[in-house]
Amino acid sequence: MESFVMRRQNIIKYRGNHFEEVDDEIAVEFPLTIVVDGQEFATMVCTPTHLEELVIGFLASEGIIRSSKEIKAIAVDEHRGFAYVELVTKQSIQKEFYAKRFIGSCCGKSRQFYFYNDMKTAKTIVHSTNIRVEQCIRLMQLLQEQSTDFQATGGIHNAALCTPNELVIVRSDIGRHNALDKIYGYCLQQGLPLSDKVIAFSGRVSSEVLLKVSKMGIGMILSKSAPTTLALELANDLGITVVGFLRGHTFNVYTHPNKIAGLEEKTLQFDN
Amino acid sequence: MESFVMRRQNIIKYRGNHFEEVDDEIAVEFPLTIVVDGQEFATMVCTPTHLEELVIGFLASEGIIRSSKEIKAIAVDEHRGFAYVELVTKQSIQKEFYAKRFIGSCCGKSRQFYFYNDMKTAKTIVHSTNIRVEQCIRLMQLLQEQSTDFQATGGIHNAALCTPNELVIVRSDIGRHNALDKIYGYCLQQGLPLSDKVIAFSGRVSSEVLLKVSKMGIGMILSKSAPTTLALELANDLGITVVGFLRGHTFNVYTHPNKIAGLEEKTLQFDN
Repeated sequence: MESFVMRRQNIIKYRGNHFEEVDDEIAVEFPLTIVVDGQEFATMVCTPTHLEELVIGFLASEGIIRSSKEIKAIAVDEHRGFAYVELVTKQSIQKEFYAKRFIGSCCGKSRQFYFYNDMKTAKTIVHSTNIRVEQCIRLMQLLQEQSTDFQATGGIHNAALCTPNELVIVRSDIGRHNALDKIYGYCLQQGLPLSDKVIAFSGRVSSEVLLKVSKMGIGMILSKSAPTTLALELANDLGITVVGFLRGHTFNVYTHPNKIAGLEEKTLQFDN
Repeated sequence: MESFVMRRQNIIKYRGNHFEEVDDEIAVEFPLTIVVDGQEFATMVCTPTHLEELVIGFLASEGIIRSSKEIKAIAVDEHRGFAYVELVTKQSIQKEFYAKRFIGSCCGKSRQFYFYNDMKTAKTIVHSTNIRVEQCIRLMQLLQEQSTDFQATGGIHNAALCTPNELVIVRSDIGRHNALDKIYGYCLQQGLPLSDKVIAFSGRVSSEVLLKVSKMGIGMILSKSAPTTLALELANDLGITVVGFLRGHTFNVYTHPNKIAGLEEKTLQFDN
């Protein structure tokens, strides 16, 4: 299959003690430069699908916009790999400012870490959905069933926006963060309510992944993989339930277990 | 085990149809801000080991330095997560410049993609080591044997600098790129010759990973995981042999197969 997601290529396989030339599927990596109001803002590498969603989600994640209504026009040049965005209200994008690290001692906890723009956009989740064990297991099964591109190339991450009962949309990318930004962009375009949603995710839960979920206003992430300490500290502060190593019929609950049926009264002692 | 690499935490496991509270190992994610000549240059998240190597390797990867002799002083504040670097020759680091995308049509190929600093530092490899099948397989086995932190946390990447016969050093990090930067930093500090070396790597081979290997002047990467199309285009241009999906006794050769014994006469047709 030739597509935006993967490309066939001639390779040499070594197996059964001999070499063999075969055609294989390789994950496409595509450079996309985002130009905001005539100024080069960022270049990312991505899987070239749903590029408009990716751009909108990325700009929201970076704190440049809060809703898709703040975008006057967006044009993606898929041939050259450029996305041109015109904002309703032109703002001078001060890169220096966005890159500045912010260390506070919020909530009396020990060291916390955000960038300045994270401070503006990360949301503490107050309402969010409750979920049953079987629903967690079922959502990850559904995500896996959709992951045919990963199975073909071994290089694609998948994220799904879910209700407790079903996947709403699935987005894939070679970059874990991009898969989430595509979902965020879709939600902003469609104006979907998010506080009752769940993210199902194939990748590791790092601080950056956790902050993206928080910015979307989503209170739960289910991952096939491991979380990091910093992601869990942030999740604990921001009210997000992190479920990891969700494989087959087993999983781990790391933070805010009370959103899961059977654990309503449960808290986890958390040192940070 | 309590360490810089992982931290014990109380979690809830679901298995065999019931919940159970256990202590588990979580991969530590640590924010490190690099200050060059008094100016905040970058903040990264990493596994807090070998931080001096990481900083030196990162600055070399970014094209700020070419040898560790260009650093007058380096001090890492492990408590607050800051690294202060003083260069022998102060340079005004123009961030804008470093972020600028460069698209050329070098070598008559279709679209290529580098950042400006990659253009300065990516090297076409002319001499590099030859390797036998059993050596490839053995190097990845040795890397796996060293990957106990990954096995405990599920969240750590490993990279090794190797000769065809043995691992020289192994570095681990939650970030794939950081593991390579730690190796690069070590090599610059020690002044090791690199053109006869090989990188063994647990992670995917993206364009960024490939460019780091190229900047080190290393001609071969062995990975447990998948490569991307852009990484292979760059590897093809820069003379780097990419071996992927090296698992047990099987692997794939994607570019420049002639460095592998038994494939000396072989070329792979490459469309880009």
